[in-house]
Amino acid sequence: MTNPFAEILDLLALVPGGDEEAVDAVRQRDRQLTKPAGSLGRLEDMVEWLARWQGKAMPTLADPMVVIFAGNHGVTDQGVSAYPREVTAQMVRNFTDGGAAISQICAQHEVNLRVFELALELPTGDITQVAAMDDKMCAATIAYGMEAIAGKPDALAIGEMGIGNTTIAAAIYAALYGGTGADWVGRGTGVDSAGLARKADAVDRALARHAAELSSPLAILARLGGREIAAMLGALVAARHQKIPVVIDGFVATAAAAIAHAVNPEAIDHCLFGHVSAESAHAKVLEKMGVMPVLDLGMRLGEGTGAALALVLAKTALHLHTNMATFASAGVSDRS
Amino acid sequence: MTNPFAEILDLLALVPGGDEEAVDAVRQRDRQLTKPAGSLGRLEDMVEWLARWQGKAMPTLADPMVVIFAGNHGVTDQGVSAYPREVTAQMVRNFTDGGAAISQICAQHEVNLRVFELALELPTGDITQVAAMDDKMCAATIAYGMEAIAGKPDALAIGEMGIGNTTIAAAIYAALYGGTGADWVGRGTGVDSAGLARKADAVDRALARHAAELSSPLAILARLGGREIAAMLGALVAARHQKIPVVIDGFVATAAAAIAHAVNPEAIDHCLFGHVSAESAHAKVLEKMGVMPVLDLGMRLGEGTGAALALVLAKTALHLHTNMATFASAGVSDRS
Repeated sequence: MTNPFAEILDLLALVPGGDEEAVDAVRQRDRQLTKPAGSLGRLEDMVEWLARWQGKAMPTLADPMVVIFAGNHGVTDQGVSAYPREVTAQMVRNFTDGGAAISQICAQHEVNLRVFELALELPTGDITQVAAMDDKMCAATIAYGMEAIAGKPDALAIGEMGIGNTTIAAAIYAALYGGTGADWVGRGTGVDSAGLARKADAVDRALARHAAELSSPLAILARLGGREIAAMLGALVAARHQKIPVVIDGFVATAAAAIAHAVNPEAIDHCLFGHVSAESAHAKVLEKMGVMPVLDLGMRLGEGTGAALALVLAKTALHLHTNMATFASAGVSDRS
Repeated sequence: MTNPFAEILDLLALVPGGDEEAVDAVRQRDRQLTKPAGSLGRLEDMVEWLARWQGKAMPTLADPMVVIFAGNHGVTDQGVSAYPREVTAQMVRNFTDGGAAISQICAQHEVNLRVFELALELPTGDITQVAAMDDKMCAATIAYGMEAIAGKPDALAIGEMGIGNTTIAAAIYAALYGGTGADWVGRGTGVDSAGLARKADAVDRALARHAAELSSPLAILARLGGREIAAMLGALVAARHQKIPVVIDGFVATAAAAIAHAVNPEAIDHCLFGHVSAESAHAKVLEKMGVMPVLDLGMRLGEGTGAALALVLAKTALHLHTNMATFASAGVSDRS
């Protein structure tokens, strides 16, 4: 029997490196712009990031895309969310109707938005009782995520929607990094203290239930879920192989990056982390991976909103890099 | 003889309060939008800030403005900058020609930009030797800053340009908060270690030279300068009285707010601090005033760039508040 994860493991192992010549070209131009060297801080880093992973000396952001994957979760039977499960499908409609936060960020800043529903009528298994998915379903969902980015945007922001999925993400982090449910759960959409205790308990029971089978990052993903996290993993890996820089959203989207990172730390080098979420354990996860988020705005909405705001900042950074005058063209004296 | 500072002291003492009814209206609408309550974090705070200080239940950002004040400083004779003094005037031309970072941020995001030169051909006194300005000149420059915001923008981002002015700002902070030059100077546009030592020394000599006359915040402003800091003080106070919310830029612009805060802490309640600069002491100053910056991007350019980026974020926040669907309109179930 072949390993259903053979393809994704290959793609994660064999990630292409960045284009350092393109980065050098950006740095050379940057030094000529009418500002002290380095004075735009992370805006300058973002232009280098675009150049490195697009492989372009003059990067572009003419066609950026936010992609949202939506999934449902059997674990919501354990009372882990402040909202009923049907909200996932209702919000998917809201995304495409233009009423959601992410829809309006994209509309205002001319970013494309694509939303993928992942069998919302068939929630994954309740992880306190059974596996979220079998390996084959998990691999198929990863492959679906790979296809979803077709059309080759020049940058991709990855987000999600799924009632119950902060509990799933917390379970993944506990499985990857150790600790108990209480170390990794937070208030999500706004559960009270009893709800928070139910989340921690659900994670602990899931970890105990699947203890023998959490031996690899992809096994963790299949046992604990969810479909949207598997699809995000597929999207971020496919993007790397297609020279598309990726911005990862918050607490749940980061779980996809954490799975990739656990297989091969270099596999997320093309990922920028858009923000640190108000969900309490997010900062800890980012630290585990050694990455520094762009924004810290106390957001905890998901939908790709934090990633999209970072993408807007990247658009501004690139606009400055492309359009600012040079010392020579503006007749400004350089350092004395 | 009348006190030249009588008017500004009155305006600082008698600042109008915020409109809490407008804030309540914003909160009421916010609770109906299709997202968990509080999940947009500081974006929600920003809409409340606009409502509170505009006095509008539905705030607007149709006509935001970045204002830059530019000044020159006699202290540059002490070798405190990596750039020659003529760069101030050259950059003013670059602002209006569209080649500077702030010009391009404003162009991309439809924010108005106005630039005011403050007698660039007559630098203020070298503060290691003489006063930067006399009280009358200082008061006149504050008044000039008040007039400069005419046209009533619906929000104002305040920035500056002036070779040598990080040394001036450091001197102001040392005079307000204690410590020596070394506690408050940083690398500015990028001085080397010798330049950094010259900056600290210049501040120490200025403090010693004027020790007997640094008895009030406005005396500190006049003795140490500079014109652009006095004008920014005028602009931020006038904005308060005209119901215009203000975003303050980085290390130097914050000195104007620090002077206002030292006279009356409530005088800066309408000010949002756009970012924390890479200039090392900026975080310490913000902490002294008990304010939390919006962005932390390692920027240290001035020109209002950090404030303008925060203003762009406020535009997005308001766009979401205005355009998102409600639970009722989108048919999304609220908390169970």
